[in-house]
Amino acid sequence: MTKLKTMLALSAALLATTAQANASAESVAWTITADLTTEVGARLAGTDREAAARDWAVARLKALGLANVRVEPFTIPGWVRGAEAARMTAPYPHQLAITALGNSAPTPAGGLTAPLVYFPTLDALRAAPDGSLKGKVAFIDHAMQATQDGSSYGPYGQVRRAGPALAASKGAAGVVIRSIGTDRHRNPHTGGTGWTAGVTAVPAGAVSNPDADLIARIARTGKPMQVNLVLEGKPVGALPSGNVIAELPGRDPALPPILVACHLDSWDLGTGAFDDAAGCGIITDAALRAQAGGKPLRTIRVLWAGAEEVGIFGGQAYGEAHAKEPHALAMESDFGADRVWRVQFNFAPASAPLADRIAAALAPLGIHRGTEKATGGADVTAIIAKQKLAVVDLDQDGTRYFDLHHTPDDTLDKIDPAQLEQNVQAWTTVLKIVANEAGPLGGN
Amino acid sequence: MTKLKTMLALSAALLATTAQANASAESVAWTITADLTTEVGARLAGTDREAAARDWAVARLKALGLANVRVEPFTIPGWVRGAEAARMTAPYPHQLAITALGNSAPTPAGGLTAPLVYFPTLDALRAAPDGSLKGKVAFIDHAMQATQDGSSYGPYGQVRRAGPALAASKGAAGVVIRSIGTDRHRNPHTGGTGWTAGVTAVPAGAVSNPDADLIARIARTGKPMQVNLVLEGKPVGALPSGNVIAELPGRDPALPPILVACHLDSWDLGTGAFDDAAGCGIITDAALRAQAGGKPLRTIRVLWAGAEEVGIFGGQAYGEAHAKEPHALAMESDFGADRVWRVQFNFAPASAPLADRIAAALAPLGIHRGTEKATGGADVTAIIAKQKLAVVDLDQDGTRYFDLHHTPDDTLDKIDPAQLEQNVQAWTTVLKIVANEAGPLGGN
Repeated sequence: MTKLKTMLALSAALLATTAQANASAESVAWTITADLTTEVGARLAGTDREAAARDWAVARLKALGLANVRVEPFTIPGWVRGAEAARMTAPYPHQLAITALGNSAPTPAGGLTAPLVYFPTLDALRAAPDGSLKGKVAFIDHAMQATQDGSSYGPYGQVRRAGPALAASKGAAGVVIRSIGTDRHRNPHTGGTGWTAGVTAVPAGAVSNPDADLIARIARTGKPMQVNLVLEGKPVGALPSGNVIAELPGRDPALPPILVACHLDSWDLGTGAFDDAAGCGIITDAALRAQAGGKPLRTIRVLWAGAEEVGIFGGQAYGEAHAKEPHALAMESDFGADRVWRVQFNFAPASAPLADRIAAALAPLGIHRGTEKATGGADVTAIIAKQKLAVVDLDQDGTRYFDLHHTPDDTLDKIDPAQLEQNVQAWTTVLKIVANEAGPLGGN
Repeated sequence: MTKLKTMLALSAALLATTAQANASAESVAWTITADLTTEVGARLAGTDREAAARDWAVARLKALGLANVRVEPFTIPGWVRGAEAARMTAPYPHQLAITALGNSAPTPAGGLTAPLVYFPTLDALRAAPDGSLKGKVAFIDHAMQATQDGSSYGPYGQVRRAGPALAASKGAAGVVIRSIGTDRHRNPHTGGTGWTAGVTAVPAGAVSNPDADLIARIARTGKPMQVNLVLEGKPVGALPSGNVIAELPGRDPALPPILVACHLDSWDLGTGAFDDAAGCGIITDAALRAQAGGKPLRTIRVLWAGAEEVGIFGGQAYGEAHAKEPHALAMESDFGADRVWRVQFNFAPASAPLADRIAAALAPLGIHRGTEKATGGADVTAIIAKQKLAVVDLDQDGTRYFDLHHTPDDTLDKIDPAQLEQNVQAWTTVLKIVANEAGPLGGN
């Protein structure tokens, strides 16, 4: 009898799980993520694939019943990928898995062959004498580890953001970094780098973690290393981009809208499922579900920003174009599709009871309230700064985010429908509260 | 007091673990695996990299004190990799992660552009009418799952081994398969295919699992698919290969030797750590450890076979060259470096007590006795068949083997030193027993 009961309970649980999985797999969040990655795929900012993504987005947002669907165009400094390969030629021949960093300069015809100099950290590179890297390629290692809150991306990301310019300033002819990533696969992580004033851009790429391990092992032998780099990605002048914007009008058009954002562009190695098709799916599904049971008081405006990866150009363009138009509150989803574990606020003291209400409503979803100040995402940073906007951060579990971030592995199969659904439920919960709040919602 | 005891016990355990990890990291098995993958790396059969691996192997085996170290050369039908890329051109443009299968024919200049026809299984392809694939590329999907004993490789591996010839026999201009692998990464699995008599070889490649998922999703829409394939790998005529052989002479040179094997060559995408540098490390370390406490009665002969991946040419050459020389028993390690979980035998009835002794000696290492008949590995198959040799199989955990097998991800970081060490201990245990057994050791 006990056994039968257990079996029945298990069957019921299985049916419930199946039902939920089916529901999630058919959700707006899922279908946006699946269809954008399947029907458009990789969509590097400025390219015709990003343009295809805008067309796709306009059609999908209209089909979903959103109003005022439009593109707000802008231009960006373009960079396109070219052929890329790397080979260690001494002391041992090895093919290395490499990808160019955004804004990398191209290698000359036949590639760049040069000694490879090992630096265990960015600090070690900082200590290298000026001019000491002339004619050489610098290799910058590091030891990034996975974290739930993604906080390791700040310090270790500097290796990618600032390392190439630093090496170039010391005369380096090229730069190779260990990928800013936490996986163990031969899939290097791309991402943008930048060049400081007075520094001439050089070819810059990232190798995968196993390749970086190999370089580090060989460096420890003390034998001189040499590499041949082919990195043909290059700047190409101004290219078109644009933000896709749509609305779910509220009952009181006089009240400033709630702004929810994601970014539409992706790096070009994967299909941009985690970064950030899922974010667009989450915010849009939640905005629609917030209409259930009666249209909210405030308009919810959906921003699918363009050209985030290559310099947050869409967010800046939005901030400038809408600087004088009052907003009530801003939020962004751009950290994958794993479950929300924490909520944080930046509310003015007068809105403390509202934050308490939101936190209480999120607790049943397994979301606890943090003590840091909400900052919003990249694409809403400009408008938040201009208007001192109220912000709610729904922090996602980032433990595996940097396994996938900016790699060929950022594909649909990495999305867990159950965790995606928890995100949508969390966003819906927040939107139902804030979009029905009549009073001012000031940031702090 | 209880707390203090717990802490002391934990400290002791920690020290023991650290000591063991250090010991493992310095073991002969570890250093062979680390150094072969670092100093030689990828070593495709027939290439100068396989030749470099033979030179490396001879030097290392001599340095380790093995006797009669020599190369037994032979030639193989060569196949070399070339440029490779795949693009879906309709209904949606996507770059696909592809690699050519060994023995693939090359695509014409500019690549092969053709309709892509989806087959969910090899059986579905079998059902396609003759001639129905003329001018088309067949895509063969499947649903391989990970197993502890690797048994899924038999049936699903047929997609790679027999699928291309089958499609070509029905007129296909090219073949793409879902990688024979169980991972979720954009790293396709290579491996050999073959062409049946009367079938003209065509270009054949494998895409990664996420790419195969994408193709399957698009196929379900019913929209016609088209691909462009560039697979420039091609046959190149006879190339040199060879077996590296070394011995640890026993006390009685008149007794037939114990043969322990691995393979030295690797596929060219990774550095061949799991497949099969670790195997060479395991058997050689165990053969050396079996000398501790007194030289065994029988000679242990170590065979690092050449050209296994491309057709088991080294094993065949060994079987032919040594057909008339009596052997006592054969074993092989060629299934990664994860722990041994099972032992199996093929012993003649008279040797049943010996099998019992071996199984009892392995039990403390967490190894249980299976009920199937031991078959040995690929490189000892020929000599076992010729001489009806006794065989002991030490079956390794293969749960993640087909995540890495034949991919760029087969690199040193995948080796777990603790599991590698358990392998060496298991092999040492077996060798100490069988190499000291004076009586005949017949297979069944």
